Amino acid sequence: MAPHRTVKQLFHAFTDRCATVPLAVEYWDGDRRQYGPPSAGRGPCCTLRLKTPDAAKAALTGGSLGFGEAYAAGEIDIGGSLQELIRVCMNPAWERRRGALHQRFQHLWERFHRRWNTPSGARRAIAHHYDRGNEFYRHWLDDSMTYSCAYFRNPEMSLEMAQQAKYEHLCRKLRLTSGDRLVDIGCGWGGMLIYAARRHGITGVGYTLARNQYDYAREQARNTGVDDRVSFVLEDYRSARGSFDKFISIGMFEHVGKRYHPVFFDTVRKLLKPGGIGVLHTIGKDHEAPTDPWITTYIFPGGDLPSLAGMCGEMGLRALKVIDVENLRHHYHLTLQHWIRRFEAHLDDIRTTLADSGLTAAARETFLRRWRLYLNGSAANFLHGDLNLYQLTFTRGLVNDLPLTREHLYAGHN
Amino acid sequence: MAPHRTVKQLFHAFTDRCATVPLAVEYWDGDRRQYGPPSAGRGPCCTLRLKTPDAAKAALTGGSLGFGEAYAAGEIDIGGSLQELIRVCMNPAWERRRGALHQRFQHLWERFHRRWNTPSGARRAIAHHYDRGNEFYRHWLDDSMTYSCAYFRNPEMSLEMAQQAKYEHLCRKLRLTSGDRLVDIGCGWGGMLIYAARRHGITGVGYTLARNQYDYAREQARNTGVDDRVSFVLEDYRSARGSFDKFISIGMFEHVGKRYHPVFFDTVRKLLKPGGIGVLHTIGKDHEAPTDPWITTYIFPGGDLPSLAGMCGEMGLRALKVIDVENLRHHYHLTLQHWIRRFEAHLDDIRTTLADSGLTAAARETFLRRWRLYLNGSAANFLHGDLNLYQLTFTRGLVNDLPLTREHLYAGHN
Repeated sequence: MAPHRTVKQLFHAFTDRCATVPLAVEYWDGDRRQYGPPSAGRGPCCTLRLKTPDAAKAALTGGSLGFGEAYAAGEIDIGGSLQELIRVCMNPAWERRRGALHQRFQHLWERFHRRWNTPSGARRAIAHHYDRGNEFYRHWLDDSMTYSCAYFRNPEMSLEMAQQAKYEHLCRKLRLTSGDRLVDIGCGWGGMLIYAARRHGITGVGYTLARNQYDYAREQARNTGVDDRVSFVLEDYRSARGSFDKFISIGMFEHVGKRYHPVFFDTVRKLLKPGGIGVLHTIGKDHEAPTDPWITTYIFPGGDLPSLAGMCGEMGLRALKVIDVENLRHHYHLTLQHWIRRFEAHLDDIRTTLADSGLTAAARETFLRRWRLYLNGSAANFLHGDLNLYQLTFTRGLVNDLPLTREHLYAGHN
Repeated sequence: MAPHRTVKQLFHAFTDRCATVPLAVEYWDGDRRQYGPPSAGRGPCCTLRLKTPDAAKAALTGGSLGFGEAYAAGEIDIGGSLQELIRVCMNPAWERRRGALHQRFQHLWERFHRRWNTPSGARRAIAHHYDRGNEFYRHWLDDSMTYSCAYFRNPEMSLEMAQQAKYEHLCRKLRLTSGDRLVDIGCGWGGMLIYAARRHGITGVGYTLARNQYDYAREQARNTGVDDRVSFVLEDYRSARGSFDKFISIGMFEHVGKRYHPVFFDTVRKLLKPGGIGVLHTIGKDHEAPTDPWITTYIFPGGDLPSLAGMCGEMGLRALKVIDVENLRHHYHLTLQHWIRRFEAHLDDIRTTLADSGLTAAARETFLRRWRLYLNGSAANFLHGDLNLYQLTFTRGLVNDLPLTREHLYAGHN
């Protein structure tokens, strides 16, 4: 029996057994088959095109890493909704069988992986993700260049409004008042600090490791006239100094790495005055689980998603008292849908930007396919998988003059 | 040197070193001394009266167990605010030194203690606390006989209103709609189920281990005309059966015991349909810590306060997805202040009730002193110590049709 025929038969047998929704597969030899329950005349929810036997092998035995690499290389293509296909692949039975081999290497992988969380590793990891240049992000983020989960008071809100609503929601959770000193760890392009300075009169300091974010944030602070109150530092969180009334970190904790969680929370405790309020805004999981290896290889080196219990535990040990937790996973799904629409609408502009930054045509296409998979995979996982977006509000020690209820977060909205 | 003189000298030296607020001590020999910083003409915040050398020894070396026993026996008396004194004693340095000896016995203690959490132990433990009779609780609880943290939309709310507001807050978190089937584990005197049936048209089942609560709840259901929709079962949570849209447990998880947390959450998962919503309302700590030994000896045998991280961890492992955590510790402090005021105002009525139940005069006074210490100690610990009241809202598995924000919890309040 020819080896290629064996791969096809294996893929066929596996898909036949595991597909829980109508799904079509087009094989490299032109054969097309449909799997899963009958689609009642509506056709399959998506079509998986396997262009080579190797692609089938990778999809079958390589876990998300194998699938992602084959997809990025163009050996796998998707007809219909990529998110729907990813949802199908999150079927627990499918995952379990496909991932068995891969998990054996998990320990080795994690040991290798940790080096991205040291101060020098973190700098390289952040450079990998963010030094693609502001232009690239400008094509698909909102005007405020906010690269984190927005807050949709209703699903029709524009992305621009929802990002500002997120900043306002966080400002209310922090109970910001004029003159407060606010520190922002992982400040990105400076959106939070600039919003808080303009709307709530705070003074603050933002830390980032990405040079292009640092330059942009400083320029924005000047342009909006808050550069006398807001400053930025191009340094690791471990080097942060000072004493602040309020602490914020938005979408940065995912880069810290479990091994450094104690160091992170020691830093929070060091920066926040007794009686101060902080909010940690981060992607997280319901329980400890390894972060997707394709994501940590190609998108976020050093990325390591925390569990809610793990964060609460570390905070509890340091008298960082959790007073409110909100899970905004639906909001991240909506945010990603906005980003994906903009990303696809500006593909040509993005190609031009990537060409300007020196990428060859082939490298550009691989890059685009990776980002398409990353954005769609994340969207599917927030809605159907194990990703959450947690906002944890906490105080350093006991604070006895807080409002009794959370009504103030919603005042003027009803 | 006479041993009594040594005890006094030790107590003096210790208090002199650790008192951080103005505090007076009256010794058994008539000697009165003031400790801590000068009180600026306002007198000490409270006076500790040590009536015997043994009382001083117990307060010094016996931990909360020694102090509580001496107080209940009348060998220690307090002038001024009992809560203020407890607050002083929560000074970390004081606690550390006083508790050192006691902690050595912690392991033995905990092993002994666990027997209260088995099904038969739990029945005895609940009998210890609740079988004092409905009359006793009626003297100081609100009309709805709600023995758990209320929800004060403002601090001026009456206790009656705040307990109803708590039920409404929980109903909104649960998104109760007419026809929902609701299970209440540890239903007390039935307040939640009766409120939910009358206001939101649910049908439901409540579990309690206390015969007097069971009888009272059934009678109340009949009196309010909801006995066709609400029923009660005199059984352990481990025996609960059925399939429900919604799950609630208010102030019962504190009795479960850490060893049985997995069993409790397995039960939640068993009772709650996929896609169902639950709220766990419980006292908890910021991090794992032994529960006060005086409390578990004299007030709540088997009581074992969970940590937030521990609960989130157990829930995460069972796909009980945490979507909202609210810390209401200030509300429990307010609730306790109401209870304490009513308790002190009805002391004579309570004495009569206790006499009717067969307690001798001496036993009555010991009982009253214990409850005074328990209520005041709890109040002080919610405001100045390590007690929290958590409401954890969760779904069984993924639920994708929830409201985007929590504004609905506050609709009509602003």
